[in-house]
Amino acid sequence: MTDATAAPAFPKDHVAAPEALRFPDPLVPVEPSRTRTPDEEARALVQVHTVASLSTLSDDGHPWGSIVTYGQMPDGSPVILVSTLAEHGRNLVRDQRASIVVQQAESFGDPLDNGRVTLAGVMREPVDEEELAVAQAAVVKASPSAALYGGFGDFTHWILDIDRVRWVGGFGRMDSVTAEGYAAAELDPVAPSAAYAIRHLNEDHADALLDIAKNLTGYTDATAAKCTRADRYGIDLTVETPRGTAYTRAGFAEPCTEPGGLRPATVELARRARA
Amino acid sequence: MTDATAAPAFPKDHVAAPEALRFPDPLVPVEPSRTRTPDEEARALVQVHTVASLSTLSDDGHPWGSIVTYGQMPDGSPVILVSTLAEHGRNLVRDQRASIVVQQAESFGDPLDNGRVTLAGVMREPVDEEELAVAQAAVVKASPSAALYGGFGDFTHWILDIDRVRWVGGFGRMDSVTAEGYAAAELDPVAPSAAYAIRHLNEDHADALLDIAKNLTGYTDATAAKCTRADRYGIDLTVETPRGTAYTRAGFAEPCTEPGGLRPATVELARRARA
Repeated sequence: MTDATAAPAFPKDHVAAPEALRFPDPLVPVEPSRTRTPDEEARALVQVHTVASLSTLSDDGHPWGSIVTYGQMPDGSPVILVSTLAEHGRNLVRDQRASIVVQQAESFGDPLDNGRVTLAGVMREPVDEEELAVAQAAVVKASPSAALYGGFGDFTHWILDIDRVRWVGGFGRMDSVTAEGYAAAELDPVAPSAAYAIRHLNEDHADALLDIAKNLTGYTDATAAKCTRADRYGIDLTVETPRGTAYTRAGFAEPCTEPGGLRPATVELARRARA
Repeated sequence: MTDATAAPAFPKDHVAAPEALRFPDPLVPVEPSRTRTPDEEARALVQVHTVASLSTLSDDGHPWGSIVTYGQMPDGSPVILVSTLAEHGRNLVRDQRASIVVQQAESFGDPLDNGRVTLAGVMREPVDEEELAVAQAAVVKASPSAALYGGFGDFTHWILDIDRVRWVGGFGRMDSVTAEGYAAAELDPVAPSAAYAIRHLNEDHADALLDIAKNLTGYTDATAAKCTRADRYGIDLTVETPRGTAYTRAGFAEPCTEPGGLRPATVELARRARA
């Protein structure tokens, strides 16, 4: 099963001609705008979703993937509720090593440009009644039907103690994050409303997005612009130009601090683009 | 890491009072209507999606989850294209054991009632130029950007030779499927259009769904009905009654044989419900 030769040396970058990875530059230079840190990106993905894929080990050591709903402990550790009637539940009783992958549910471009994060670690049961109550509440909040089967004797709550976090934000955006950085990362107040805002901008404000691309991101030759991401600091745009497709970002005047912050922030952006 | 005691005996069914799992029965007995086989359900899930989660083994044997796009070989085996710049790519060079999970992308009810399938097996590279060409075409069809980076030297095509298939269709619907059964399963011509049809039925034809629930599934006391699944043989409904929520199914007069078959089949169903 395993390659018997010495571990191969892997390349450190894509093995390709440089021009294969080149995208059109802005025609007017622009200051790069602030982004969330990789810790904040990882935390935001886990924050706004409730469905994940779980990797465990089958009795023969084979990696086994399954789907779970998860809740979140106060430090962002996922908590799941699984039955030993299911293979993943039996796997965890035998071996608690696991990883959980959360991916962006809604796609606004190439699915490979969507965010996803792997949290790898070791599952454990709640240490006492108090932590069990927190875990139960977290699971029911994420998946109300857990209130029914959470009490069944074949179900166990498992909390993932995170060892490693790997965030992939899309093409060319990725980083490893420490467990401490992940737990300490500030939550983005607009993360839960971002998907709705992106859809609304693309469906109803394509003209404003084009103005933003032309006048605030340096792509003065843009012919169309689509929003692909939105966070407290700004929006990401995919921009069509006669020179090819480009990927850029427009920063807000001030970071959003409230759950409803994306609407005023994008209105200000559009106004500034037209000034 | 691993529990040192003997393998625990797991229960064979939910450990719960029987009434916790009881749903209201139809008031008028109805013949059960035909469903897809578990092989066909598994194959249909893989057929209509292009994004999956991949479980591989890290160098320390830890299960590692990641997100991939996949294409399909003619027998339904997934084929992926991954870089050794990524952990999953390095994992597969070292150990080819893997599993792939495909889940229903769009949710029409409780996410835990969505379909998902785990395909477990061993990854291998295409055996010759001819198979490589088929794999390349399958990957590009699923993810057009693969045409760009598919030629990079750090990317490898891997085909999953399937050993085990585990299908979970939602609450109480699940089965194991043999690799042979999966490969031989007939594709459902309406699978690619099912999500659109379900959305359309729920948004624009709630009255027809209620008539179908009342007059064709025996829930004569239904007060609302929502479509949660559609396939060549019929539609699944979640039905509200004064006695609680029930889950039922209405079968088509004839199985659909064409990609556009859901529209005439559901029109006939609604007409029959009102006859």
